[in-house]
Amino acid sequence: MPARARRRLVPVPLKHVTVDGAFWTPRLRTNRETTLPLEYDQCKRTGRLDQMKVRPPARGKFYDSDAAKWIEAAAYALTAAPDQAVERKIDAYVRWMQAAQLGDGYLNSYFQIVGIDRRWTNLHQDHELYCAGHLMEAAVAYFQATGKRAMLDVMRRCADHIGRTFGRGKGQKRGYPGHPEIELALVKLYRATGERRHLDLAAYFVNERGRAPHYFEQEALARGEAPQPFGRIGGVTAAYDHRQAHAPVREQRTADGHSVCALYLYAGMADVAMETGDGTLLTACRRLWRNVTEKRMYVHGGVGSTRFGERFTFDYDLPEETAYAETCANIALVFFAHRMLQLEPRAEYADVLERALYNSVLSGVSADGTRFFYANWPAVKPEAHNFRERQKPPTRQDWFGCACCPPNLARMLASLGQYVYMTTRDAVYVHLYTGGTAKCTVKGTPVTVTQKTDYPWKERVRLTVRPEDPVNFTLALRLPGWCRSPRITVAGKRVRPADVDKHGYAHIRRTWRRGDRVELRLPMPVERVRAHPAVRQAAGKTALQRGPVVYCLEEKDNGPDLADVALPRTAAVSARFDRRFPGGGAVVLSARARRTRAQDKSLYTTGRPRLRAVRIRAVPYFLWNNRGEGEMRIWLREG
Amino acid sequence: MPARARRRLVPVPLKHVTVDGAFWTPRLRTNRETTLPLEYDQCKRTGRLDQMKVRPPARGKFYDSDAAKWIEAAAYALTAAPDQAVERKIDAYVRWMQAAQLGDGYLNSYFQIVGIDRRWTNLHQDHELYCAGHLMEAAVAYFQATGKRAMLDVMRRCADHIGRTFGRGKGQKRGYPGHPEIELALVKLYRATGERRHLDLAAYFVNERGRAPHYFEQEALARGEAPQPFGRIGGVTAAYDHRQAHAPVREQRTADGHSVCALYLYAGMADVAMETGDGTLLTACRRLWRNVTEKRMYVHGGVGSTRFGERFTFDYDLPEETAYAETCANIALVFFAHRMLQLEPRAEYADVLERALYNSVLSGVSADGTRFFYANWPAVKPEAHNFRERQKPPTRQDWFGCACCPPNLARMLASLGQYVYMTTRDAVYVHLYTGGTAKCTVKGTPVTVTQKTDYPWKERVRLTVRPEDPVNFTLALRLPGWCRSPRITVAGKRVRPADVDKHGYAHIRRTWRRGDRVELRLPMPVERVRAHPAVRQAAGKTALQRGPVVYCLEEKDNGPDLADVALPRTAAVSARFDRRFPGGGAVVLSARARRTRAQDKSLYTTGRPRLRAVRIRAVPYFLWNNRGEGEMRIWLREG
Repeated sequence: MPARARRRLVPVPLKHVTVDGAFWTPRLRTNRETTLPLEYDQCKRTGRLDQMKVRPPARGKFYDSDAAKWIEAAAYALTAAPDQAVERKIDAYVRWMQAAQLGDGYLNSYFQIVGIDRRWTNLHQDHELYCAGHLMEAAVAYFQATGKRAMLDVMRRCADHIGRTFGRGKGQKRGYPGHPEIELALVKLYRATGERRHLDLAAYFVNERGRAPHYFEQEALARGEAPQPFGRIGGVTAAYDHRQAHAPVREQRTADGHSVCALYLYAGMADVAMETGDGTLLTACRRLWRNVTEKRMYVHGGVGSTRFGERFTFDYDLPEETAYAETCANIALVFFAHRMLQLEPRAEYADVLERALYNSVLSGVSADGTRFFYANWPAVKPEAHNFRERQKPPTRQDWFGCACCPPNLARMLASLGQYVYMTTRDAVYVHLYTGGTAKCTVKGTPVTVTQKTDYPWKERVRLTVRPEDPVNFTLALRLPGWCRSPRITVAGKRVRPADVDKHGYAHIRRTWRRGDRVELRLPMPVERVRAHPAVRQAAGKTALQRGPVVYCLEEKDNGPDLADVALPRTAAVSARFDRRFPGGGAVVLSARARRTRAQDKSLYTTGRPRLRAVRIRAVPYFLWNNRGEGEMRIWLREG
Repeated sequence: MPARARRRLVPVPLKHVTVDGAFWTPRLRTNRETTLPLEYDQCKRTGRLDQMKVRPPARGKFYDSDAAKWIEAAAYALTAAPDQAVERKIDAYVRWMQAAQLGDGYLNSYFQIVGIDRRWTNLHQDHELYCAGHLMEAAVAYFQATGKRAMLDVMRRCADHIGRTFGRGKGQKRGYPGHPEIELALVKLYRATGERRHLDLAAYFVNERGRAPHYFEQEALARGEAPQPFGRIGGVTAAYDHRQAHAPVREQRTADGHSVCALYLYAGMADVAMETGDGTLLTACRRLWRNVTEKRMYVHGGVGSTRFGERFTFDYDLPEETAYAETCANIALVFFAHRMLQLEPRAEYADVLERALYNSVLSGVSADGTRFFYANWPAVKPEAHNFRERQKPPTRQDWFGCACCPPNLARMLASLGQYVYMTTRDAVYVHLYTGGTAKCTVKGTPVTVTQKTDYPWKERVRLTVRPEDPVNFTLALRLPGWCRSPRITVAGKRVRPADVDKHGYAHIRRTWRRGDRVELRLPMPVERVRAHPAVRQAAGKTALQRGPVVYCLEEKDNGPDLADVALPRTAAVSARFDRRFPGGGAVVLSARARRTRAQDKSLYTTGRPRLRAVRIRAVPYFLWNNRGEGEMRIWLREG
C-alpha cells in the first residue's frame, strides 16, 4: 500500500514575499517594465486581445492561452507593484469574457468564431481545455492580486460547464485534454474558492487519461474521421504517447511525448495527489520525476530531446545541436519540481528547480527582456540551422506564431517569489537564495525572514529572522546539491551541516528571537560536471558549473570551431565578475585550453595532431547570444 | 587562359577486363546471381517493368530510371557471363520501348499515362530528362554487351527529340534537367555512336544551367504556377541551389544541394570538358572536386550531410547519426572521380574513388546481396530512428518506394572492371588492385596485364605483363594515399617509388617482355585517421583504417554505449583475418580501450570519471549490420 500523499510544505503566498538583490531586482524590473508591455503589444497586434473581431488563423486555437498567460504574469506583477493602467487593460479583457461567455458557461474565442458546433469534438488536438486552464490560472492570479472576482467567476462558471460536460456520469463525455494544463489550474481554482468540485474534476481528468476504450479514438470516430494515434515518429507502437495518453498515468513508467504536455500533466498529478492524499499518484509522480531527472534532462535543466513532436525521446538521448529543450518545457519542469517539493521536502527537487531556473529558463529571454528563445540548445552552429527542417533560428526572436514561451517566461519571473519560501506547522523552508523578505506565520506568531545576498555570483547569504515574539521552530535551509562544503553560522556560532542535514536541508531548530542572524556560505569553486557514460553526446566531455550556473563557450570570445577546444583534465579554471557583461554583469570563467592546429587543408590525415595552447573564456549559458549570433557550446572535450 | 582540357586516360573497355580474386569474385557473383534477379523481381512486382498497364503512383516518375539501371547492370553482367534468359527479359522491355515511343521520339512511361500534355512542362521536378539519361546509359551498355542496336536506336531517336525540343534556337525551350544525369549519358551516347550532336546537346545542358532569366521560373510561370525556388531550408538565399541551378556551373564555388544531382552534374561536366576541350569547365570541376573532397566528404567516402533535401550542407559539417551519405551519392562520387582521372592522372582521384568504393558504396548492400541501405551513416543509435522525421530505418531494407539505390549498386558492381585500368598512347595505368586481367593495346601491340592479389585484406599484389611482342611503355601503378611505404620490385629488382612517383603513380618505363613480373607491396598497418579540426563531430576522435578499409565498432561485439569507448593514444591495434565473418571473411581489428564506469545512477556528477579496461573489436564499416541491428560508430574517442 503506497503511503498517503499529503502537502507537507505550503509556499508562502506571493503577496507576502519580496524579491530583491543585485541579481534579481533588475531582471524582475525588466520583466515588469519591458517584457510585459512588449508582450501586451504583441498580443494586441496579433489579435490575441481582440477576440471575436477577426477570424483567427488556425493557430488561433492557442490565442486565449497566450492572453491568459499575459494576464497571469501581469497579475503577479501587480502584486509587487500596483498599476492602474495594467488593471484597466485586464478589466477590459474580463468585460469581453463576461460578454462572450455563453449561457452554459462555455468560453473559447476560437471556436465561438469558427463554429460552436465544433466545440468539444476534438480534445486530442483542439486545445480547448488547455486554454480554459490558462484562463483559470489567470483568474486566480488576478483575484489574488486585486481581490476582483469578476474573472474568477467567469472561470468558475466555465469550470462548472466543463464539469457537466466531462465525467463518468450518464450523458457525459469521458474525455480529457490533449494538452494537459487544466488539471493543475483546477487545483488552483479549488484552492482559491474552496469548491471541492474543481478538485474532483482535476482528479477525474488525471484518472481517466489513457484508459480503454481510447477517448481520442472514440471522438475521432464520432467526427467520422480515422483516429490519428500519433506516437513515436515512424510508428504508433506507443500510440498517443505524444500526449501521454498511451496508458493510464499510474502505468506510465517513462516520461514520454511532448515535453510541455508531460510536465504540465505531472505537475497536475502531483497537485491532485497532495490534495486528495492519493499515494498511488505520488508513486507515479516519483517514478516519472526520476526518469526525467536521472535520464532525460539536459545539464542546463532543459527537457525535450527533439523538435519532431517537441518531445522526450529515450533514456540518455540528449543531442546537442538538435536538442529542443523548449523554454515552456523547462518552466514546466520548475512547476513539477515545485509541486514535488510541497509533497516531500527533498533538496533534489529544489536542485532541479534551481538548475532549470538559472540556466534553461533564464536563457529563454534576452538580457534586455525583448527577445526570446523557443528552443534552448546546449550547442549551436548557426549555419546548420539553414539545413535542418523545423529548426528554430539560432538567435532570439521578438515573437512567435505559436507564442507560448514569452508569456510563460513573464509569468515565471513575475511569480518568482513563490518558489523561495515554504512553511510547515513548525518550520520555515528556504529553497532559493535571493535577496528579499518573506512574511509568514509559525505557530501563530508572525515571523519575517530576510535574505541579503548576491547569489548566484557570490557565495555568502545573510539571513535575519524576526519573529514578533520569541518562538521555537525549525529554519530549514537548502544545502544545494552542487555545493560540497556549505558552512552555516547562527548568531555567529558555527553549525555543522552534517548534524542537521535532512534530505539536503539544514534543519536549525531553536527559539528564534527578533534579529537573529544566520549566515550561510556556499563555496563556489568552478566544478567540472560529467554526464552518465550512456549519454553519447557528452562522452569524454565536461561542463563547467559555478554555483547553480552552467557555463558555455561563445564564438564571440573564443572564435569558431568550439568543438575542437579541449580543456586539460588538470587545467585550473578561474572566475571573476565582469561588470560590463550584458545583463548587469556576470561571473565569467577563464582557463588555459588546447586547440588542434590544422596541419594542411586535408580533410583527413594520419598525422599526429599538433596542439596549441589557447586561453578560453566561458560565460553563463543563460546569457549567451546577447552579443550577436555565433557558435556556442556547453560540453567541452577533456584531454 | 585555362589550359585546354583533354581526355588523357581511356578506360580499358569492360569487355576486355576480368575481375577475380578472393575479395571480388564472390561479391560479383552475388551481384549477378542474387542481387540482379531480386531487383528484377522487385521492379516487376512494383510495375517498373510493366509500363502503361497500370497508372503509376506519383513516384512512378522515376520508374523508367529504375528499370534502366537494372538493364544497364544486367548488360554489364552479360559482358562477363552471357545469359539468354536475361537477354530475353531485356529484349521484351526494348520491344515495349519500340512500341511505346511516340512518332516524334518522346518516350516516358509516366507521362504517356498520366497525360502527355504535361510533358516537358516541369523540368525542375519531373525527372523526364533524368529517366531518358538512364535509358541512354542502359542502351549503350546493352549495345556494347550484345551488339544489339534496337534499344540504342530508340534512345538515339529520343535524344534527337530532346535535342529538337531544347536549345538556344528559335522555338526551342532553354531548359535543362532538374536532376542532372542526361549530360553524362549523352556523352556515352556520343562515344558509342560517334554522333557529335549528342555531345553538343550535353554541352548545351551544362552551359545553360543556372542562367538568367531562370528557366525553372519561366516554366513555372508558363504553367500558371508560382515558382518554387527551393534552396536551403528556411530560406531561398541560394534559390535553386538544391538542383545546382543557382548560378551558371562555372560560377559555382562550392558543392551545393542534392548530392546525387550535384555529382551526376559534375561527372557530366567533366565528360563534356574532356570531349570538347573546354578548360573553363575543367577548372570548375577541379574547384568542385576540391570542395567535395577537402571539406564535405565523410571518412567513408560518403557525401550528403542531411536527409533534408538529401543534400550537401556547408564546409566541415559532417554529422554522424543524422548523416545521409546516400548510396547513390557515394556511387556518383565514384563516377566523378572516374572522369577526373581520365582528365588528369592524379592518385587523389583514385584514392577517393577507392575510399568510397570499399566503404560507403559497398556498405549499401548486405553481404548476401539481398538488402540495401539508402543512407550510410557513420554512426547509428537505432532507438533514435524512432524519433526523427525522414530518417530511414537503421537496418538494410529489401527495397524502397524510391528505389534508386539498389540498381545503382548493381550497375556499379557489375561494371567494376572499367575502374581498374586505363591506357594512354604509351602507358597502362593500374588504379585499383584486384585479381583479374586487362587486355589492352599499347603502341599497336596487344598487352595483357594480370593481377593476383587478396587486396584489400592482404598487402601483396603480383602483376604479370604479357605483350605479344616486346614493347616499350610505362606501367603506371597507383601508390595509394593511405600507404606510407609502398615497395615495388620489377623482375625481382627493387624499384624505389620515390624515383618514379608522379602524382601518386609509380611510372615504370621499360621494354616489357612476355611474362615480366612486378610485385607491389602495400604495407597495411592499422592507421588512425583524424579529421580537420573544423569537423566538430570528429573533434578529439579517430577512425581506424587499414588499407582502404575504414573500420567501425558494432554493438554486437562491444556492447552498447559505443560513444563512451575511448581508445588510448598509444594503444596498439592488431589485425587478423576472421574467416567466419559475414561476406566471406574479413580482417577484423582489436585493441585495448577504456570505458567509463557509471558511478551511480546520477545523470550528472562532479566526481572524477573512473575508467575500466576493455577489449574492443572493430570490423569493416562496409560489413556492419550483417549480424543484426544495433549501435555502430566509426569515430572513436581518443584518450
